[in-house]
Amino acid sequence: MSERGITPMKKNYAEWYTDIVLKAELADYAPVRGCMVIRPYGFAIWEAVKAELDRRIKATGVGGKKHRNAYFPLLIPQSLLTKEEEHVEGFSPECAVVTHGGGKALEEPLNIRPTSETIMYKMYAKWIQSWRDLPLLINQWANIVRWELRTRLFLRTLEFLWQEGHTAHATHEEAQEEVLMILNDVYRDFVENVLAIPVVVGRKSEGQKFPGALTTYTLEAMMQDGRALQMGTSHDLGQNFAKAFDVRFQDENGDLQYVWQTSWGVSTRLIGALIMAHSDDKGLVLPPRIAPTRCVVVPIYRTDQREAVTAEARAIESELAGSAVARDAAHSEQAVVLDERDQYKPGWKFAEWELRGVPIRIEIGPKDVAAGKAVLVRRDTGERIDVPRPNLCGAVTEALSAMQEALRRRAEAFLRSRTHRADTLEELAEILDGEGGFVHAPWCGARDCEDAVQEKTRATVRCIPSDAEETDGLPCVACGGEAKWRVPFAKAY
Amino acid sequence: MSERGITPMKKNYAEWYTDIVLKAELADYAPVRGCMVIRPYGFAIWEAVKAELDRRIKATGVGGKKHRNAYFPLLIPQSLLTKEEEHVEGFSPECAVVTHGGGKALEEPLNIRPTSETIMYKMYAKWIQSWRDLPLLINQWANIVRWELRTRLFLRTLEFLWQEGHTAHATHEEAQEEVLMILNDVYRDFVENVLAIPVVVGRKSEGQKFPGALTTYTLEAMMQDGRALQMGTSHDLGQNFAKAFDVRFQDENGDLQYVWQTSWGVSTRLIGALIMAHSDDKGLVLPPRIAPTRCVVVPIYRTDQREAVTAEARAIESELAGSAVARDAAHSEQAVVLDERDQYKPGWKFAEWELRGVPIRIEIGPKDVAAGKAVLVRRDTGERIDVPRPNLCGAVTEALSAMQEALRRRAEAFLRSRTHRADTLEELAEILDGEGGFVHAPWCGARDCEDAVQEKTRATVRCIPSDAEETDGLPCVACGGEAKWRVPFAKAY
Repeated sequence: MSERGITPMKKNYAEWYTDIVLKAELADYAPVRGCMVIRPYGFAIWEAVKAELDRRIKATGVGGKKHRNAYFPLLIPQSLLTKEEEHVEGFSPECAVVTHGGGKALEEPLNIRPTSETIMYKMYAKWIQSWRDLPLLINQWANIVRWELRTRLFLRTLEFLWQEGHTAHATHEEAQEEVLMILNDVYRDFVENVLAIPVVVGRKSEGQKFPGALTTYTLEAMMQDGRALQMGTSHDLGQNFAKAFDVRFQDENGDLQYVWQTSWGVSTRLIGALIMAHSDDKGLVLPPRIAPTRCVVVPIYRTDQREAVTAEARAIESELAGSAVARDAAHSEQAVVLDERDQYKPGWKFAEWELRGVPIRIEIGPKDVAAGKAVLVRRDTGERIDVPRPNLCGAVTEALSAMQEALRRRAEAFLRSRTHRADTLEELAEILDGEGGFVHAPWCGARDCEDAVQEKTRATVRCIPSDAEETDGLPCVACGGEAKWRVPFAKAY
Repeated sequence: MSERGITPMKKNYAEWYTDIVLKAELADYAPVRGCMVIRPYGFAIWEAVKAELDRRIKATGVGGKKHRNAYFPLLIPQSLLTKEEEHVEGFSPECAVVTHGGGKALEEPLNIRPTSETIMYKMYAKWIQSWRDLPLLINQWANIVRWELRTRLFLRTLEFLWQEGHTAHATHEEAQEEVLMILNDVYRDFVENVLAIPVVVGRKSEGQKFPGALTTYTLEAMMQDGRALQMGTSHDLGQNFAKAFDVRFQDENGDLQYVWQTSWGVSTRLIGALIMAHSDDKGLVLPPRIAPTRCVVVPIYRTDQREAVTAEARAIESELAGSAVARDAAHSEQAVVLDERDQYKPGWKFAEWELRGVPIRIEIGPKDVAAGKAVLVRRDTGERIDVPRPNLCGAVTEALSAMQEALRRRAEAFLRSRTHRADTLEELAEILDGEGGFVHAPWCGARDCEDAVQEKTRATVRCIPSDAEETDGLPCVACGGEAKWRVPFAKAY
């Protein structure tokens, strides 16, 4: 156990994760099975995620239009949910069902949305008449309920928060452009550059795709225990839902045609990934670009030195709060914090802010005041440097940007170190039973073969990368038939 | 009917309202009874409301702390909801109940939150141990379900969006300070200065207060049909919930004490108020500070003039988008819009942007280009002025601020004109049956008397204003006994 009672990662990864979530006050177990409370500190991270993604979503689009937000009902009538056959098969078993309202039994049960395709496309059928109404590019931030049996804070909960984009297009080409633009320009850019988590992108196998989609694209990240985590998905829905919901438009020649649709989403699960990708045995490590608090100032003094040190600490806080350190932060009001609490010793405070993953700590004591300097400490490396006071804002800004870059490089190096190749099922199983990671192995593309590998190793095909290596006649690890590509197998959350 | 098919306000106020909501594409009826879809334009208004309120909420607090956002579960176990007696009596009949999850009947039914006191305070009891944990100042943005029988778009729907603040304090004084700070410094300031809607504030009568509260404070606005609309409430919960949920803290002397609590909220209903307070027979009228689009630029040309006029219109759009007009807007990306659509005539576009309530229209035609000017048209007055091109950004900024002020003054004048006095029940009934409004009449404070007035007039005591006029021995309009104050009666939404 560390000072703050966090189980070491190597001792028990799952406990290490839960300890960080609870002790850094990111979330807590709720008095409803499988649900969680997102506490203010965890919610501030989600607000930063929302702000960054919302800006990217609103700034992008296809066909000369941009995405706009809207809000659709929580409750979906049973008759709507069942319209698309694969979709209802996939989601019906996971639904929470409202059977009573206002003290009476309902004539038709209502499902709490497990995703919103059905309720949204019923409206799209009404709103879309002509080619002029296309593309329709709508995003929604909402809560979702899926009746999961095994839950884990942030990673899999009965209720979670997410965004779901739902678009309709005149052509399949434009819909495909949308699906890949969201995957690469919005999600991948955000995950890699803001969350500092490298991902492998590609399409899902038939067995893993979204119920009702033609093709599902995914972003897969590698956690520090060698297991994969799906960060988000972007679906090419083809015309499956358009046909089920009769979403048609009159084209420029006056002919009625079905629209082509897409849907795509990321959720509060990203916070789980963020914790698992960067944190250590002292607690949370947050990339500066997503940290609600970027810098904490801790004064150090004996009682008789209090006044002078506190005055200097306040001056530093106010300078930093007015500088670039706070300016572009999602939470500019808490980007810089001065910890003036008298009841705690500096060492206790250091551990607390380390637990909470604040990227930069500034220590200021009587000797620093006398020497006209301060001490800057980086959360990821623990490195301490003396900085002359006039250079402080610049030094913090630089350290933030260096830490952002360092976290990403470290995560990339980790991903490389956990990326392996295997040519046989035995090799594959051996690596997966060992340190895990992505194991690229030849696969014929058949669902039975994917199932057979999963049976033996508990790993699945995470995706078929767009640049998947050609296998040149190598045998599939499962059936021995001709493999199509080398694809990453991994155990996953 | 106007050009866009809006029923005139005087002909049928309810239809006028619904026409604006549907035709301005603010919202639509959903395929679930009593629910609505908030369409992108309506949701952009809600996002602006959220941004303004969220900033105010995060910037305020009591006891040296500020409010922070968090998120609590949607589903509340029956056993929690029933812990506070008045509360469950008030809300149980309005609940939507989940009885099945994952294909199985649940052991305990779950209520979709009709408000979150119970689920939140169960957690507060766990988190609050010592006086050091106080005050606890948490706000949540969430969706709420109440099983209403008679619904109306934005004003009363089965599901709505809101924010709910929930705070816990060591003393009743601090809790009361919080309740009134939210009422006046956050809600009233926002409603009057941003939404341009004047309000009467005060506390609710016993019959109208929140189930479980000691005192409920309210903001009451006057719609253009003379009916009142409750804009938001702020509750002093006393120790009622603290006792029901055992929320206690150790004070500085080591004694265990119950906390004092508050809760407060405003909802998407504010958008209904916004529409009803300012709009006219041409459609929506939006105060500039809340309008998603503040200014639209419409080029006017014959085909051979298209290039020159379009070039000028684009230059104007780009200047405005880079100016103060867009800078502090909640939706800076759509604050200025250039309407280049070729398939519509200018007159059609004017009517469309008037319907959507865009505050300022800039018209630019060939003669304007030649004369180095543009025409600025205000949505509220229809006033057209020629503005020399170099002055355009300044003129638009000024017009926006003048319109904001004018809408507020107009609403204040309307409120005054619909504020009446009555000394007898007959007088009261006569005014309420006539033009309606707030009718200030003497009341003894008894619930029976409020019920008797409601029976006869369908009006209720909207609030007991903090500066309610003393009645100096006048008889109560209902019982003839001694009145305590003169209070505003009104029919309400």
